[in-house]
Amino acid sequence: MTRVVVDVMLKPEILDPQGQAVLAALPRLGVSGIVGVRQGKRFELELEEGTDLDGAVLARVEHLASTLLANPVIEDYAVRIEDVSTPSVGSPAG
Amino acid sequence: MTRVVVDVMLKPEILDPQGQAVLAALPRLGVSGIVGVRQGKRFELELEEGTDLDGAVLARVEHLASTLLANPVIEDYAVRIEDVSTPSVGSPAG
Repeated sequence: MTRVVVDVMLKPEILDPQGQAVLAALPRLGVSGIVGVRQGKRFELELEEGTDLDGAVLARVEHLASTLLANPVIEDYAVRIEDVSTPSVGSPAG
Repeated sequence: MTRVVVDVMLKPEILDPQGQAVLAALPRLGVSGIVGVRQGKRFELELEEGTDLDGAVLARVEHLASTLLANPVIEDYAVRIEDVSTPSVGSPAG
């Protein structure tokens, strides 16, 4: 099975209240050395068995990302192909 | 500047209504060939200039991930070091 990951983050110029909330909480957790936190969304898309990751498939994912997964006005996205032997974040290795 | 990414996803056994909502919307967008969608969170942590990514720093990020960024009861997380020359998702290359 092939997995394509779409990472969606707010554009740098857009205020990120969730990221700032995490940053503000760090001292209470005793965590230092982190000067910036940004929070976004991660989508894991499982493709049909045997799907060739050719340009057409990636174009479809790009279309999906720019129309449904991200709001291009305030968000940027990046499409990545993840090696399926890499444990999904959802497995114990996480 | 060094960037550490923390990906947080729901555990596989946990119902993912947002992922299912995206999956259900695909036919209306004319997108086929995608058999599963899971949605999670992505955190980009910027570390202080010159921080050595030794065990201590990664242990701090793990502590942060398991206490603040992820809810270990229903979520798994993965910590990754991102090469800063890789454009953050927030840059036009996204």
